[in-house]
Amino acid sequence: MLPLKPIPPPRRVMLYPREDGPAAYGAATQAAASLTERGIAVVVPAHVHAKAGTDGLELPASAVGVEIDSLPDNIDLMIALGGDGTLLRGSRWVADMGVPVVGVNLGDLGFLSAYGREQLLEVIDDALAGRLAWEPRLRMAVEVHRAGELFARGTAVNDVYIKHGQIPRLLRLATRVGGHDLALYKADGLIVTTPLGSTAYNLAAGGPIVAPGTEVFTITPICPHSLTLRPVVVAADDGVTVTWAGPTAGVSDGYLTADGAWKIGLLLGDEIRMRAAEMPLRLVPAKASVFEVLAAKMGWSGY
Amino acid sequence: MLPLKPIPPPRRVMLYPREDGPAAYGAATQAAASLTERGIAVVVPAHVHAKAGTDGLELPASAVGVEIDSLPDNIDLMIALGGDGTLLRGSRWVADMGVPVVGVNLGDLGFLSAYGREQLLEVIDDALAGRLAWEPRLRMAVEVHRAGELFARGTAVNDVYIKHGQIPRLLRLATRVGGHDLALYKADGLIVTTPLGSTAYNLAAGGPIVAPGTEVFTITPICPHSLTLRPVVVAADDGVTVTWAGPTAGVSDGYLTADGAWKIGLLLGDEIRMRAAEMPLRLVPAKASVFEVLAAKMGWSGY
Amino acid sequence: MLPLKPIPPPRRVMLYPREDGPAAYGAATQAAASLTERGIAVVVPAHVHAKAGTDGLELPASAVGVEIDSLPDNIDLMIALGGDGTLLRGSRWVADMGVPVVGVNLGDLGFLSAYGREQLLEVIDDALAGRLAWEPRLRMAVEVHRAGELFARGTAVNDVYIKHGQIPRLLRLATRVGGHDLALYKADGLIVTTPLGSTAYNLAAGGPIVAPGTEVFTITPICPHSLTLRPVVVAADDGVTVTWAGPTAGVSDGYLTADGAWKIGLLLGDEIRMRAAEMPLRLVPAKASVFEVLAAKMGWSGY
Amino acid sequence: MLPLKPIPPPRRVMLYPREDGPAAYGAATQAAASLTERGIAVVVPAHVHAKAGTDGLELPASAVGVEIDSLPDNIDLMIALGGDGTLLRGSRWVADMGVPVVGVNLGDLGFLSAYGREQLLEVIDDALAGRLAWEPRLRMAVEVHRAGELFARGTAVNDVYIKHGQIPRLLRLATRVGGHDLALYKADGLIVTTPLGSTAYNLAAGGPIVAPGTEVFTITPICPHSLTLRPVVVAADDGVTVTWAGPTAGVSDGYLTADGAWKIGLLLGDEIRMRAAEMPLRLVPAKASVFEVLAAKMGWSGY
Repeated sequence: MLPLKPIPPPRRVMLYPREDGPAAYGAATQAAASLTERGIAVVVPAHVHAKAGTDGLELPASAVGVEIDSLPDNIDLMIALGGDGTLLRGSRWVADMGVPVVGVNLGDLGFLSAYGREQLLEVIDDALAGRLAWEPRLRMAVEVHRAGELFARGTAVNDVYIKHGQIPRLLRLATRVGGHDLALYKADGLIVTTPLGSTAYNLAAGGPIVAPGTEVFTITPICPHSLTLRPVVVAADDGVTVTWAGPTAGVSDGYLTADGAWKIGLLLGDEIRMRAAEMPLRLVPAKASVFEVLAAKMGWSGY
Repeated sequence: MLPLKPIPPPRRVMLYPREDGPAAYGAATQAAASLTERGIAVVVPAHVHAKAGTDGLELPASAVGVEIDSLPDNIDLMIALGGDGTLLRGSRWVADMGVPVVGVNLGDLGFLSAYGREQLLEVIDDALAGRLAWEPRLRMAVEVHRAGELFARGTAVNDVYIKHGQIPRLLRLATRVGGHDLALYKADGLIVTTPLGSTAYNLAAGGPIVAPGTEVFTITPICPHSLTLRPVVVAADDGVTVTWAGPTAGVSDGYLTADGAWKIGLLLGDEIRMRAAEMPLRLVPAKASVFEVLAAKMGWSGY
Repeated sequence: MLPLKPIPPPRRVMLYPREDGPAAYGAATQAAASLTERGIAVVVPAHVHAKAGTDGLELPASAVGVEIDSLPDNIDLMIALGGDGTLLRGSRWVADMGVPVVGVNLGDLGFLSAYGREQLLEVIDDALAGRLAWEPRLRMAVEVHRAGELFARGTAVNDVYIKHGQIPRLLRLATRVGGHDLALYKADGLIVTTPLGSTAYNLAAGGPIVAPGTEVFTITPICPHSLTLRPVVVAADDGVTVTWAGPTAGVSDGYLTADGAWKIGLLLGDEIRMRAAEMPLRLVPAKASVFEVLAAKMGWSGY
Repeated sequence: MLPLKPIPPPRRVMLYPREDGPAAYGAATQAAASLTERGIAVVVPAHVHAKAGTDGLELPASAVGVEIDSLPDNIDLMIALGGDGTLLRGSRWVADMGVPVVGVNLGDLGFLSAYGREQLLEVIDDALAGRLAWEPRLRMAVEVHRAGELFARGTAVNDVYIKHGQIPRLLRLATRVGGHDLALYKADGLIVTTPLGSTAYNLAAGGPIVAPGTEVFTITPICPHSLTLRPVVVAADDGVTVTWAGPTAGVSDGYLTADGAWKIGLLLGDEIRMRAAEMPLRLVPAKASVFEVLAAKMGWSGY
């Protein structure tokens, strides 16, 4: 089981409502008012702040809009208002800074959100009373090297996948773990997932479910050409390196996607290096274990 | 990557030839002679010692036969002469005592043996020169509790499986991890495997390959009744507990097997507790990584 | 879609209640009374007839008990009272004679029963009004040849599997289709299934779902040693022959099971020949298609 | 087993060399010369004819170049020079006209080509001696309906798949078989394959191997969101209809690909109707059965 670290009562809270518009504005309005009333500073993404007064979004005058990619360093807690996807996307901006994240679930049953919609004020109560606590969750640091030089870098809480583009030709992906050759995958693509991401795309592609608290990455090919290429679980410390190998004739286009949010086109020869990020995600865990959520989603407990 | 610990030159070596008879006696004869010549004490299992002078087995007069289940505590190294199975079975007797094990492979390509047949004298040279080193490999401690009391205990280097007997009725196996319910498996059976055992029965049943150096157990159902019951990877520290659940009518017989070697019949209600053994297996690793062996066995590297 | 053949109003009906005792006796009592009242002769298995007057089973004086393995040839319809398993087992005794079978489901949702418990009198109404119709469903004729001679024969509506016994050693099963070698399976066992049986053990072992109306057998290995051994769908007309191949040393025990009901021990060298039975099962189909049942059982239709 | 129909000695033969240029021109030069010498008319695709005199391609003066999409109706035989892909693509143009196709394999082991490179003159000998014979192989007729009208139509010898485009959002694919709802697939896409195509993309996506001579389509989802959505085998006569279902917000782009050769973009709401083509592919089968090829490719026969 993972160690729980208490979160001191926050003085500045970032609200991160679901990105696709007004659906989460009611909850954001309510949370902003409650926090402000209780003397806690409220921060929201600038694009949300710009919407104040429209679409049902009301923000106190004291609420501050901040550019999501250059956040101030004094945020004590992020409250994500939406589903697992919202929490994942919101956490991308604060995880490196060690800001703990808690989710209020506005939609379907998920794995990450600790609170349901009707508990919006309860999470604020709990935060202010110092009753929240976070667990570390393995994240991935990703680098793309092109022609020997660092071309791009990012992080992933869930997964990274490398996949063909519109023309579904097989990619040849030479994969190394801890400096040793693992396999040359000939496949539609390849998923490298953290334990957190194991119940997402990895599961659809045939990978195993991996419990939080394990320090492993799982490498799962997507529609591999060879039937012997099965999912492989490796120590996160060893790192995973994938090179888009030739031949150069008849190749497809390829791209890399991290957490379904960060996407870049790849060139033949690009090398993608994945390793454990230095700072884990500081997640306020759901009260239900991943197994209880799975049992509910999948009917595992039924007699 | 796993840390390597050097093995000091041994003064007493146990030879463990393959169990099914004369096939490994030539190698045992040669190794015993070479060790004795160089002043190293030789120990063999009593049932092997009893065969000396027959079937091509010659042992020096100084070689000692010992009961395999009450070994002296002064053995410095076990040399297993056979394949992966021989090494697994031999290691069962010495792993708890912290005796390092090295394999000389007399058969097909395997994952565990560090030396090939033609290297029989080389392993002795390396041992006496202090050039051998071991890596820790996760082992499993297993307890069977019946009617609230400890009924049996054992260990597994590879895997434990719980399965129906001759009448192939579904077993209902209530499974807990770290004190939380995981799932009620309705299946032919259930495999719990260490990383080392992941390429054995687990792979045939649809489980992932798990690299050495990860501290995880993998739980893989055998022919599960529900399609949502997929392999699950959990932290070894959390432990896995399986209870053979009812109903009591129409049940099959059931049994537990560890490493294909230790087998006991189960009763309805039995609880099987698996956790990381305190003492890991001290294995002299093969020079080829598990991935290189897989690549060779499965054709992963081919263009 | 399969052709539907109307069933003329029956003059003699066999009731086949679930085998495990009184659970289905209420329904049998009710059906026997209704049929007798309406002038239809009632037949039941002798072991059921012997229970009349006990356990809530009441039979009219005119009801006849018959030995299940030497049925008279004047039965016009079998009504199975139970679940899919009851219908399967009941049909074993009448399918070769071309007697149509209709199921009244007393338990969980199933694939085979056309009527629910509350429709017990409705099925009788429909039968007497000539409103029932049957579809042909592929059955399997099975022969076991030992030392060159026919040793046993039987049929299967669902599936045949060949599997190790209590000692779970790999079986080597040399398999031929239409006179051509298919594969040498090294596995816990092998399932050969009709379309009807494809949603049973075959599905748990990783096989595909096969729609009724296809004239195919599906061959699915159980925990195959080689990852390339995938399920294979073949024309039923070609037949499937499986030989339990050596080596002779270290073999397990093996057995064959048909429809979970007929079980015989196998010897090394036994050859099992499976082909389409001449007489298909004449089944009154469920109003819901197999897909609708699957959708309900598995949540396929959900948005 | 499939019936074999003899092919009378041809008077006009179409040569179809691999499309990607000079690789197959040597074989085409040799075949064209041999046929012309023996008084058989030679036809080649116009784009090949235009290359005569370059890249090592020499054609007799009498050889005729024809537009591939408006072939004359007097072709008696197509000889495909290349691998399985070449034969598939070549057959697209002649299969509807009932022209038999025979492959000369210039590359890796394949399933479709009856002759190897060194047998180029042998196939001509066999053809002229009337020793060739074809088997019928199930093909698929495909229609795309848009807004209630026929938008496009084509055929497939191997498979049709419907898949997301560059943005890998889940597609919702409402699927019907024989007029009944099968399932609403939420997946990266869906493959519908003939028996011939079952060893291609279908196998990589987890589908079964389907023997030639079965009149079935196999429906295999690509990375389905739900673990219960397994491959389904249905009677080809029943047809398969797939509708790209909403919701309309946040949808990906989608497209349809037939035999990897014919590709069209899809719009939400498009309905794809697949049924058995009236004219099967008339294929001169490989001497080795599909099982022997599989055994060789996959090592199925090894002890």
